Amino acid sequence: MTLRQRVRTIVDAPWFQAAVVTLILVNGVILGVETSPRIMEAHGTLLHGIDLCILALFVVELLLRIYAHRAQFFRDPWGWFDVVIVGIALLPASGPFAVLRVLRVLRVLRLLSVIPSLRHVVSGLFRALPGMLSILLLVVLLLYVSAVMATRLFAEVSPQYFADLPTSLFTLFQIATADGWGTIAKDVMEHMPMAWVFFVVFVLVSTLVALNLFIAVAVEALEKDDDDSPGGGGEGRVGSGESGPDGEGPDGQRLILAELRALRAEVAQLRREREGAGRG
Amino acid sequence: MTLRQRVRTIVDAPWFQAAVVTLILVNGVILGVETSPRIMEAHGTLLHGIDLCILALFVVELLLRIYAHRAQFFRDPWGWFDVVIVGIALLPASGPFAVLRVLRVLRVLRLLSVIPSLRHVVSGLFRALPGMLSILLLVVLLLYVSAVMATRLFAEVSPQYFADLPTSLFTLFQIATADGWGTIAKDVMEHMPMAWVFFVVFVLVSTLVALNLFIAVAVEALEKDDDDSPGGGGEGRVGSGESGPDGEGPDGQRLILAELRALRAEVAQLRREREGAGRG
Amino acid sequence: MTLRQRVRTIVDAPWFQAAVVTLILVNGVILGVETSPRIMEAHGTLLHGIDLCILALFVVELLLRIYAHRAQFFRDPWGWFDVVIVGIALLPASGPFAVLRVLRVLRVLRLLSVIPSLRHVVSGLFRALPGMLSILLLVVLLLYVSAVMATRLFAEVSPQYFADLPTSLFTLFQIATADGWGTIAKDVMEHMPMAWVFFVVFVLVSTLVALNLFIAVAVEALEKDDDDSPGGGGEGRVGSGESGPDGEGPDGQRLILAELRALRAEVAQLRREREGAGRG
Amino acid sequence: MTLRQRVRTIVDAPWFQAAVVTLILVNGVILGVETSPRIMEAHGTLLHGIDLCILALFVVELLLRIYAHRAQFFRDPWGWFDVVIVGIALLPASGPFAVLRVLRVLRVLRLLSVIPSLRHVVSGLFRALPGMLSILLLVVLLLYVSAVMATRLFAEVSPQYFADLPTSLFTLFQIATADGWGTIAKDVMEHMPMAWVFFVVFVLVSTLVALNLFIAVAVEALEKDDDDSPGGGGEGRVGSGESGPDGEGPDGQRLILAELRALRAEVAQLRREREGAGRG
Repeated sequence: MTLRQRVRTIVDAPWFQAAVVTLILVNGVILGVETSPRIMEAHGTLLHGIDLCILALFVVELLLRIYAHRAQFFRDPWGWFDVVIVGIALLPASGPFAVLRVLRVLRVLRLLSVIPSLRHVVSGLFRALPGMLSILLLVVLLLYVSAVMATRLFAEVSPQYFADLPTSLFTLFQIATADGWGTIAKDVMEHMPMAWVFFVVFVLVSTLVALNLFIAVAVEALEKDDDDSPGGGGEGRVGSGESGPDGEGPDGQRLILAELRALRAEVAQLRREREGAGRG
Repeated sequence: MTLRQRVRTIVDAPWFQAAVVTLILVNGVILGVETSPRIMEAHGTLLHGIDLCILALFVVELLLRIYAHRAQFFRDPWGWFDVVIVGIALLPASGPFAVLRVLRVLRVLRLLSVIPSLRHVVSGLFRALPGMLSILLLVVLLLYVSAVMATRLFAEVSPQYFADLPTSLFTLFQIATADGWGTIAKDVMEHMPMAWVFFVVFVLVSTLVALNLFIAVAVEALEKDDDDSPGGGGEGRVGSGESGPDGEGPDGQRLILAELRALRAEVAQLRREREGAGRG
Repeated sequence: MTLRQRVRTIVDAPWFQAAVVTLILVNGVILGVETSPRIMEAHGTLLHGIDLCILALFVVELLLRIYAHRAQFFRDPWGWFDVVIVGIALLPASGPFAVLRVLRVLRVLRLLSVIPSLRHVVSGLFRALPGMLSILLLVVLLLYVSAVMATRLFAEVSPQYFADLPTSLFTLFQIATADGWGTIAKDVMEHMPMAWVFFVVFVLVSTLVALNLFIAVAVEALEKDDDDSPGGGGEGRVGSGESGPDGEGPDGQRLILAELRALRAEVAQLRREREGAGRG
Repeated sequence: MTLRQRVRTIVDAPWFQAAVVTLILVNGVILGVETSPRIMEAHGTLLHGIDLCILALFVVELLLRIYAHRAQFFRDPWGWFDVVIVGIALLPASGPFAVLRVLRVLRVLRLLSVIPSLRHVVSGLFRALPGMLSILLLVVLLLYVSAVMATRLFAEVSPQYFADLPTSLFTLFQIATADGWGTIAKDVMEHMPMAWVFFVVFVLVSTLVALNLFIAVAVEALEKDDDDSPGGGGEGRVGSGESGPDGEGPDGQRLILAELRALRAEVAQLRREREGAGRG
């Protein structure tokens, strides 16, 4: 057993995974506690120390896993995810990059890559994305066109909500989530009574499109579910031609039909022979 | 190859489509930039110039496509869509028609007719409309009846929300989207404590109807999906009697049953012959 | 042809139905116009006159239909619906019954009973009710228990929202629709910081229950759809044992299985005879 | 018939169940009436007396049921539910435990354990929980990470909403329900214009995850429904291998396929014999 194999055994062992999960959870609690200025004043140095230790352990863990799995590690998107998440914490975060310090909190999201069931859920979310890409494109297009129109129409009347294109985009996104759109519409309609046409149409269209987005995801999910069930559940999609001899679903029907045709051929053969025998 | 055929080859070529998409995107960016008064002051003439050029190119493109496809162009609703969208930009937009200038932004929506996947999504939305027509009619009816009742009941008590029929319609549409209905109801209930009956019933009924609208669309979508899958996906609905010999779905069952009956007839025939032979 | 038959022919004729629909629409427009005090001042007497004429025509129409269909008319819930709706308009609406005058607007809802597709949608809504009865009961129970608890806990702290049981019920219903619950919760939490437990739990539970209500309706709808499709769509539910010889759905499978067993019995018989012949 | 059997007969009798339901309903009304200070002043002693009587009857009822069913009573989670609910009312509720007095209202929830259809709905809700556990974990994780980030970023800018970790958690939960998030975001964006990135991403992600939670529950429900329907509905899940001889669903297909293979074997046997006979 080479060193690499030995490292791989360690890295893939359940106790190793459990230790990593524990580290992430501890780190999460510390990151939460660090938001309290009162506690930071009293124990700030200690907390920062633990934080650094855990970060060092994460780096060691990642190096071990890279050493153990080599190229395979980087073929898995979750490997990249871990590297980026840990990498952010190693970047210097002073001056204009102070916002990076906040992104360190994302380290807690490593739970997503470490706990299989969470990983499964997130993978599912991402797998659903291509199916809804065109609808998302449609949403962006509608939002942009509406924002341009709203800015042109309402910029002077209601600068609070429609002063320029970015403000209009934000306002329309807010209206699309149906949050407080009545107030916004009333504000505009005070000066332009006909503005209700724009708002009612926008609310209706955005609801209809959102509905369709929803349906697209649901149909995707139900289909995936249909595909998964014969193969015994699990992550991958089962190709339609290889669902095995269980006789379930459309493939079952195809099997039945094939069997039936063979049977009919056999009976026909039997009959021809019989007729031959009768004549003979 | 006639001139018309040569034009058609050009018009249907991928590079032509790509050029049109690029033009639309550039136009979209310019229309967005034009909303900024500061930029318009500095480069207004230039932007308007580009805008006019692109409009001219759109007109040429449409004329080419009409020349190439003739009557067929107008048989496609998307052809009409393009003509109307470009036509709006050609109308004079001065005086009382100033609002038409805003509608020029709709030109960006030409992306819908040019990019096939977006076209597919929008077609799907429109195909779903007839299935939900009766529910939409029901929604309009309920909204109208409720608005008449609300105007009669609350016009004097809460003129801010229910002064006349149009105001009531807008308010009730807002309540149906569950946006700030508590505030509106409270305003009325200050003077008419029993008004909660109206609002609670309206919220419940509109939610129930919206739910049904939703379900109708979902069922439609799932059905369409069922129909599409055996035919290998795609746009059109596959008629139930022509799904081919794949033995999938209900048609597969019908095939199996037919096969089975033929088989049984054959076996019965075999047996009759045998009995005849036994007797003979 | 007796008089009753002749009346029935008239009452069931398409032109009669169309005339009734027209009357209802005209009545609806007039009821809408009557909400405007300005128009009522100018043409009030005329509008009231038309209103009375239409009401008289409705009464005649109902009497004709009752004469034509007799007991059958009252066996249909839509018959009762029409009678009640028209009856409301005949009641005297003075003094304490002034609210009945408002209910006259419901006459427009007669469209529901007259237009078949609307009738179908509404019937569907009512048919879905029994399936969701237990969940609705659960909702009412949770709302009541929460309102009693909220009144006891928050009545003194936030009398604006939780002064007594009816006020609490209204407030919690509002929170369940997720409208402005943040403001309400903040108001209470100012004095009772731990109140967030109540609000977060209530929002979570009510969302979960609403979700289940939704699912129940969706499952119901999808099932109904499954049942309808083999019978060619339409209004009634098709009993599971009589879906005809089309070989679709589970019934198709049952047919296939029966056919198959009969076939196997026949082949077994054939074989026994053969063996008998071999031995004989 | 021993005493235990006789008690069991009583306890399981419909009239006993009906009496318990009546007691719970009466208790519910009294608990509601007790929220009114005016009525409590006039009839407080009487109401408390009835309350105590009903509590005593509940204790007797529980003791009878425990005596009748012994260990089996505690094997049913609903048994524990009843014991805990009634137990809360027996605890002394003075001093720091005054909040327990409010929890006595939960006694009305005993309806859940007593009425079978409500019991069924609630059991269904709890059975659906494991299926959505990973998504719920994901929601909690996202909420926590976002709250830590928001506190770090916005604590100084908008202490009203993001002063410390608990406040941020509450605010983000409120934003996730799309209630008034526009106001909150505007408040922060006044000082940090780039904060819209955080809010838009958070709203999008939380909507997407909520959508997936929803889908997971729906798929679960539809699957359960599929499983239930062959077994004739009802509470338990039917194991996939024992759905009986009805020939419905995938199991029906498996049966058909088995039948078909046996048939083909028989025909093949017949043919071999025939050939043997021909040769012999």
